[in-house]
Formats: sequence, structure tokens, C-alpha cells
Amino acid sequence: MANSKYEYVKDFEQTDVLLPSTWIVVRIDGKGFHKFSDHYQFTKPNDRRALDLMNAAAVEVMKELPDLCIAYGVSDEFSFVFHPNCQLFERRSAKLVTTIVSAFTGYYIYKWSEYFPSMPLQPPYLPSFDGRAVIYPSNGLLRDYMSWRQVDCHINNLYNTTFWMMVLKGGMSNTDAEQELKGTVSGDKNEILFKRFGINYNNEEEIYKKGSVLYRQFELQEPELVQEGEVDNTTVPEGKQSRTQQERLRKLRRKAQVVVDHVDIIKNDFWDRRPWILSGKPGKLPA
Amino acid sequence: MANSKYEYVKDFEQTDVLLPSTWIVVRIDGKGFHKFSDHYQFTKPNDRRALDLMNAAAVEVMKELPDLCIAYGVSDEFSFVFHPNCQLFERRSAKLVTTIVSAFTGYYIYKWSEYFPSMPLQPPYLPSFDGRAVIYPSNGLLRDYMSWRQVDCHINNLYNTTFWMMVLKGGMSNTDAEQELKGTVSGDKNEILFKRFGINYNNEEEIYKKGSVLYRQFELQEPELVQEGEVDNTTVPEGKQSRTQQERLRKLRRKAQVVVDHVDIIKNDFWDRRPWILSGKPGKLPA
Amino acid sequence: MANSKYEYVKDFEQTDVLLPSTWIVVRIDGKGFHKFSDHYQFTKPNDRRALDLMNAAAVEVMKELPDLCIAYGVSDEFSFVFHPNCQLFERRSAKLVTTIVSAFTGYYIYKWSEYFPSMPLQPPYLPSFDGRAVIYPSNGLLRDYMSWRQVDCHINNLYNTTFWMMVLKGGMSNTDAEQELKGTVSGDKNEILFKRFGINYNNEEEIYKKGSVLYRQFELQEPELVQEGEVDNTTVPEGKQSRTQQERLRKLRRKAQVVVDHVDIIKNDFWDRRPWILSGKPGKLPA
Amino acid sequence: MANSKYEYVKDFEQTDVLLPSTWIVVRIDGKGFHKFSDHYQFTKPNDRRALDLMNAAAVEVMKELPDLCIAYGVSDEFSFVFHPNCQLFERRSAKLVTTIVSAFTGYYIYKWSEYFPSMPLQPPYLPSFDGRAVIYPSNGLLRDYMSWRQVDCHINNLYNTTFWMMVLKGGMSNTDAEQELKGTVSGDKNEILFKRFGINYNNEEEIYKKGSVLYRQFELQEPELVQEGEVDNTTVPEGKQSRTQQERLRKLRRKAQVVVDHVDIIKNDFWDRRPWILSGKPGKLPA
Repeated sequence: MANSKYEYVKDFEQTDVLLPSTWIVVRIDGKGFHKFSDHYQFTKPNDRRALDLMNAAAVEVMKELPDLCIAYGVSDEFSFVFHPNCQLFERRSAKLVTTIVSAFTGYYIYKWSEYFPSMPLQPPYLPSFDGRAVIYPSNGLLRDYMSWRQVDCHINNLYNTTFWMMVLKGGMSNTDAEQELKGTVSGDKNEILFKRFGINYNNEEEIYKKGSVLYRQFELQEPELVQEGEVDNTTVPEGKQSRTQQERLRKLRRKAQVVVDHVDIIKNDFWDRRPWILSGKPGKLPA
Repeated sequence: MANSKYEYVKDFEQTDVLLPSTWIVVRIDGKGFHKFSDHYQFTKPNDRRALDLMNAAAVEVMKELPDLCIAYGVSDEFSFVFHPNCQLFERRSAKLVTTIVSAFTGYYIYKWSEYFPSMPLQPPYLPSFDGRAVIYPSNGLLRDYMSWRQVDCHINNLYNTTFWMMVLKGGMSNTDAEQELKGTVSGDKNEILFKRFGINYNNEEEIYKKGSVLYRQFELQEPELVQEGEVDNTTVPEGKQSRTQQERLRKLRRKAQVVVDHVDIIKNDFWDRRPWILSGKPGKLPA
Repeated sequence: MANSKYEYVKDFEQTDVLLPSTWIVVRIDGKGFHKFSDHYQFTKPNDRRALDLMNAAAVEVMKELPDLCIAYGVSDEFSFVFHPNCQLFERRSAKLVTTIVSAFTGYYIYKWSEYFPSMPLQPPYLPSFDGRAVIYPSNGLLRDYMSWRQVDCHINNLYNTTFWMMVLKGGMSNTDAEQELKGTVSGDKNEILFKRFGINYNNEEEIYKKGSVLYRQFELQEPELVQEGEVDNTTVPEGKQSRTQQERLRKLRRKAQVVVDHVDIIKNDFWDRRPWILSGKPGKLPA
Repeated sequence: MANSKYEYVKDFEQTDVLLPSTWIVVRIDGKGFHKFSDHYQFTKPNDRRALDLMNAAAVEVMKELPDLCIAYGVSDEFSFVFHPNCQLFERRSAKLVTTIVSAFTGYYIYKWSEYFPSMPLQPPYLPSFDGRAVIYPSNGLLRDYMSWRQVDCHINNLYNTTFWMMVLKGGMSNTDAEQELKGTVSGDKNEILFKRFGINYNNEEEIYKKGSVLYRQFELQEPELVQEGEVDNTTVPEGKQSRTQQERLRKLRRKAQVVVDHVDIIKNDFWDRRPWILSGKPGKLPA
């Protein structure tokens, strides 16, 4: 349509294209979820409904964006991962991040009543999320990012489980519990749980200990014998795929089911059995 | 809490702090709203409920973020403006943009049923928005940005009004109407509207012709005699405000009502009477 | 010419275009000039030949790049300033910075023997400079940047003058002088200079106290009565000039002589009399 | 030293840290070398003195910056490569680029008279270079970058050799030669050279056909049997080295001689025999 003399202001938009051939991680975080979870009386230390809702929203985001290869969620945060070959929105950072944040927020609110039927949302206590994109130049680095989030999940969950036991079952004040836990290591917390409350941390639910991994389900592969600890460092394939090829891959990915898993993603096994995640090449659909 | 050996991956996050002392415009856009508006049968050329819903969501965003000075909406897009002095989230671009996108999406969905009571939202037709931040170094440039959006509103609305009259009242096919309008100027469209459909475009509703301006209401000021067309180029004040000062200003702004107006923002009058918008200094609350 | 299959690697270059309508300051700094000045036995606290050589190189850079409006040098650093309207190299940051760094280095080395005839350059003691671009959104901010450098010049020069008097004339060790000066204010240093060495700091040479300002000489203007301390905040003109207009302005600027001045650039007087610097519009050539 | 109220202007400097764990290529280009080479009557199509001077300057840059692993030069351009592990200047882009540009310019001018003894430099015909940094996320991509430059060298040299033969020996006008070469492929040019001028392009000097590769000389390794064409895609090692470790490596690299070679860097052989270039781990010094 017609232009105006003001159109020159468009020149002030600066490009924010992310470096090609790198993994793109979009991590979103609940805004003020401390207050938010208090208001809606989330169970401590973990509220299963809240986590299931996070996962449900994330599954929808994965379905809408077949370019996503994997996602990992813990507490009120979720990391969504695009493959180095991804060309979605020409890899413009703001576009990728806001699309995910908006879709996630939308589904979280839309599905809220399913998971909290007796707790209608009340402004100003509406859930919202911020987000950012970070890029990683190699498979090894992406794996370390994922490991970072899962180790964090473990550390926080062990702490929270112990803390809330001490408060809710042990009758301690928040301050006293916090004070006692200061400087403790994992072993100490495991011991407090076991000796005082008869809890074996290993028996806690996997979703709390491991967080949630979302990916598209293809046929699992027999892992070759890979030595534990050795990082699978196959590099990012350089070069670009044609648009047709991209579209074809997108269609194949759409056909696969998005599953929610609570498993170790630090060791190689997870990745070896699901080579399509790092390779970006869809596997065989399970029978 | 405890750290892990994976924490080094945080170093890959790159800063995206926006240049100090510049206007920050966050513009959000409905994603796939063509399809979306078809699905929920929005009235053509303008659906009043949809615009009111956009404005209602934007009002809530303005209320949540007192750092916002003004916002302008048209169709499925909204521009939110932070003052050059704004220090919110240390001016990190992704944080500012995603916060607005997420809050806006949330309120849009939350309030949907108020405006479309008989049309429940149905996935995958959930509304979502993308966004981006653009910075402008001077008042004159910000004014030109605002003028750009309002001129665009006018151009598009005149076109759409004429087009849909030709189709809905004139019984033309979309293609025929499009063909006839190709290359026409404003005068031509005004004439089509008037001669064929007895419509005087000037009598159309202001919200359609001018879009929606949102700002905090303080006491209007008598505009000094400023010559038409002359741009008020008072510069951006340099230097930084202290945190206390910022907090105080935020409180004052929260007290003011956010109003939705449909007026000319291209000429000086609007800005002269509301000096608090460009100055960033809250005015007197109206009695 | 012919392309190769490797050409896709060009896509990894990321744009670094500087925000339009902002002042661009390219500041360059001598690398390891402490060692360098020792090696060539620069006089302490100021070596007039070295400063003259810096200025001579900067004059050549100004002549080669008529887009530069003003430059300011002190010690082994120089700041070169492009006007907000500047479109040189499409405002690509690396291009602007490296062009200045390379030309400056070249002239510094080329002219070395003129200023240090008895001291031929000897690798690895070749002078080199690094540089960076910083942008400022308003005239007021640019003025504050220039003031920052000139105030720094004064602070450092007063310190160095006092320090080296204490060492060279007063026979103190470096450490003792440093120790005594710790925590002193200007008044203290002025007193040391006057009482111990009979030096009135005000009588020191202007080039040492004020640094060097380079600009194109047009006819000076009568400054209107502007109140001291009030910053001239005329904004950056928005909009773009055509290429022809830019070329015409470049030619006019080339005709003006580049002068080296040692005057106050903090107060308004300097800028009021030379309005072409901030306006970017060449004045009248002096008769 | 003392601060001033103007110091806040430092906040406008924006960080330009390059993504960790990526190859950094700094490519510099002669500015206006067409004119420059005309002025100093460079031999066509290649001036051996000019290329030797470029290489001599580049060798000095490599010596000054032990963080550089390899460099490649052709015509008036040079690419300098930092390893993904490089932490020099905290990987700030402007700092890395300007340091190289300034040092290179300095040595080029300093050594000019050695290579062009009868042609003293005359302003304004001083050589200068611009530069930029580009990052590559994997070894394969870096190899493709290097291949790109070497293929370009070949394409341009074959064209130039043929063109200048036609003009200088064949007596054709520039325009006629250009016209005839339009649309020709390698085979055509080889034939023109051979049939008209009795030149076998394969016998041309390697420096013209292959460009110049600079690297530190350690003991060559027996290449394992690697299939031709297969790219050695060992990934970039993640994680960071300690400062002490970096310093130790720098020292080892300084001890190695920087050699200038004119060999194929597209196939694997070059890289397989010199594994220290991609690994960043210095090899054994040759006996």
C-alpha cells in the first residue's frame, strides 16, 4: 500500500539474526512465580499439577513449532532447543523468543482450569513468562547446557525437599531450617531426610528429581558401546538445507508424538538411543 | 546454592542492553491473525469487540508497567513506549519485549470471553503475538514513529473500508474490488465510498480512523502557541535518575488513570497538552 | 567473477551498523605506550614532540575523512567524532573504526622521523593503536563526552606535573611521590607545585592543560548571550540527506582548514561560536 | 584517579564480546589498493615485492600475537585466525580487529622501503587497511572459510594472468580483453594462455596460484589414512583454559618459527600433518 514520509523510521530496527550453524536455546522463566505460587497455594516443595500444566503447555509449543528438537522443564522454567540447521524466522532472535513466550503463556492460561479447576485465575495474578535466546556452537556445549539445567534441578529439589520436610513435618521455622541447611552437602541432606523423616531421596518421584524432557518419539536405537563420560562430539553439519528439504523434515517431525520423559540426560545413553535429536534427521516412526 | 561444573555455559549469554537515553518502542503483532480473525468471524473491515479487547489488554500492560509512557494500537498490533530515562530490567531488550508480549497475551486470552462471550477459544486457534524492540534517539524521531503508525492506520482503514463496502454492499468479488482499487489515491476511495455507498469517510468512527492512544491522565495544559508542523524537539535529558527517584515517579504514574483515546497524535497539540509524556515527569492528577 | 561452493561462509558475517541519527565517537588509544614512551625517552610529564606528532597524524585523518566534525586528543589517545547524519560506510562500526585506526597508525609512523629525527623507529617498538566506536543519542551527551575527556586531561596533567616535579626536581623516589599524592585534591597539588617549585600551574602550556581540539575552520559567529552552564541541547536533526547533498557538504568541508586548538570545550562559548560542529552544516570560509 | 561528573558517558559503550568457543577470523583488506598499486607501479598481474611485503608484515603480526594459529593472504587481503579457546582481550571484537589492523599497517609501512627501495611512500598515498571479525562455530566451517579464500585466489589469479597476458603481450585493449573473457570457464582461460602465449598455467609460481599460508612450525605428523574429501570434523573443545595454561601455551607458540607456505589448504593433507593448528595444542619443536 501507499507509503508515508515517516516510513524512514523503519531503518532504526536493528537485525538480531543468530549466528548460523549454532544450537539455539530459548529459556523462559515464570515472572514472580514465588508470589504467584503462594497466591494459588501450590503444594510445597513440588506441586504436581503445576508441573503437569507447564509440561502440557510445552507440549503444545513443541507441536506448533516442529523446528524444536527437544525441551527441558524444571520448576517454572522451560528451555526450548532449535537445531543448528533451523532457519525459522531467518533465525531472528526476538521473533523466535517472543513466539515461544507468547504461545507458552497462551496455553498455560488456556489450560489452567484443567489442572486447577477449583482455582480460577484472578488478575493481577495472571501467569507470565520472560525469555531469552542463547546460542551454543557445538553438540558438546548443548549437552553441557542440558546437563547444567538437570544438575540444577537435582540440587534445588534435594534442598527444597529437605527444607520443606524440616518445616512441614519437623515443625521448624523457615529461618531455622535455612540456617541448619547452610553449608550442608548432598550427603547431609540425604541423612536428614532419612534419619529424621524416614525418607529415601532416591525413592522420590522422577519428575521432581530429573525434571521433564520433551522430544519427538521415533524408534529407539541400540546404543553402540560408548564409554561412560565420553561426550559425543559429532559436529554441527555445515551448509544449508533447501527450503523444500526443510519443509519435508518439518512434516516428518509433525507426525511424531511429543513425549514427556523424566530421565537422565547427562549421560550418553539418552542421546545415543535418540540420535535424531542431535542430528536433526527424523528417525523411523514407531510401529 | 551449590554450583556445578556445567555452570560455565552461562558465559554464552550475550548482553542485549539497549543504548541509554533513547526511546524504547516495543511493537507487538498478532501472529497469523488473518486466519485467527476468520476463525472467530471478526466483522469486516473492523471488529469493534476485537479492538476493544486489544485495548483492554494493553491497558492492563500499562498498569503493570508504570515505566510505559504511551502506547498506540491499530488492528492486531500495539506499540508500547518506554521513556529514555527508563532503567527497567537494566534496559535488557529480550526481558522488556518478552515481559510485554507475555503479559499482553495473558490478558488477551483472559479477557477474551468478556468480549466474545459466545465464541470460546479453541486450540490450535489460540491468539499469540510476536514482538521486537526498536530504539529512537530523539523526541522528534519518536514522534515520527508514532506518526508513521497513525498514518498507516489511516491508509489501511480507508482502503479496507472501501474494499469491504465494494464486496459486502457492492457485491463485488474480492479480486474485482482489489483490482479496481489498485493505484487509486485517497480521493478516489473517498469518492467510491460517497458516490456508491453514500458514506462520508469523515463520519466513520474515530477508533477506526485514528487507532487507539493509551496514556496516563494528568491535568491537561494550555498549549502555548506553537506553529503547526513545527516539531517539538526538546531533547532527551541526559544523566541518570537515582533508584529512589525512579521509584517515586513510578508510584505517581501508578496513581494516574490509563485512558484510551482516539485522537490525532501527528500534530503538536496532543503532545503540547500532555507534556508529561515526552518529559517523563508526571503531571498533576486531575481533581 | 565465478563463485565457489564455499561462498556460503559469507553468511556468518554479522551486521554492525550503528544506530542512525546518533553521534559516533571513535576513540583510539596507544597500545603499550608506557613502554613505548620509555623506549624512545619521551620527556616527562609531557613530551611536546610526541603530542605534536599525535596532532599531525590526527589532522591527516581529518583531511582524509571530511565526514569527521571534530576530534580531541590528549596523551596517547584521540577521539574522532562523526555527525549523526554521517552515512560513511553505511555506518558500519568495524569499517569506521579500522579505517581511522589504520590511517592514524600510518601517518604516525610516516611522520615519526619529522618529530623524532634522531630516534629511528625500531621493531618491535613500533607504535600501534586500538580503537572502538561509541554512539551518543544527543548533542548534550556528545558535549558531556567531550567534557569528560577534557576534565580527564586536566586531572591527569595536574597529577603528572606535580608527580614529575617531585621526582625530577624534588629528588623523591617514584614510590614516595606517589605515596604523598595519594588522596590529595587539586588545591594540594597546586600548593605543592607553587610552594616547593615556584610553579603556578595556570601558567603551564595550554596544550598540556587543555589537550588538543581539531576542527574545520569557518568564520566564527558572535555567541548569543547564553547563560553559563546551560547546555545547548538542540536536537539531532532527523531524516536523511540525499547522497548528492552529502557529497556537496563533503566538498565544502574539504575546503576548510583543519586547525589545532587548545581551548576550553566544556563551556558553551566554544560551541556557540562554531555552530557548524554540532549542526553539521559547513559555515562560511574565512576571508 | 579522581572521577568527574561526566564519567557516566562510559555507560554508552556497548560490549562486543565474541561468542566463546568459536573460531575468530579477522580479515583485513587494503583500502583503495587499485589506485595505490597504480601509483607505485605494481607489476601486473602480480607484484612479487608487494606480496612479499604483505607476508612480511603478517609474519610480524603472527609473532606479536601468539594467540593466532594460522593466517592466509592473497593480493591485498589477509585473514588472521584465532583459536576457539582464545581469550585475548576477553574476545572483544573491536579490540582484536584494531590491534591487528594497526600492527599490520605499521609493519607494512615500516618495511616498505625494504621491498620498494626506489619508491618512497608519498602521502596521501599511504597504505591503509580496514578489517572485520567473523566467527565460525566448527572446524569444518573454518576449513570452508579457508577453502573459500584459496579458491577465490585461484579464480582471480587465473583470470588476471590471462587478462594481463592478453593486454601486455597480446596487445589488446583492457575492454577487449575483458569482453573476450566474459563468460569463459577455467578451461577456456587455460587454453588462451597455452595457445596464444605458450604458458602452462600449472607452471606459474605457487605463491600466485595458492596464496600464502602462515603458521607456526612444529614437527610434521604422518597423516593417517584419511579419505580425500572427507572433512575432519573434530569439534571445538568446550570449557575454558586457566590463565596460567594459556600463558604457558603462548610461550610454546612464541618459540616456534612462523613459516610462509604456498600450499593447498583445501584438502585434508595440510591439516592432518599439522594437527596443532586445529587443536590449538603446540606440537614438538623441530630439531
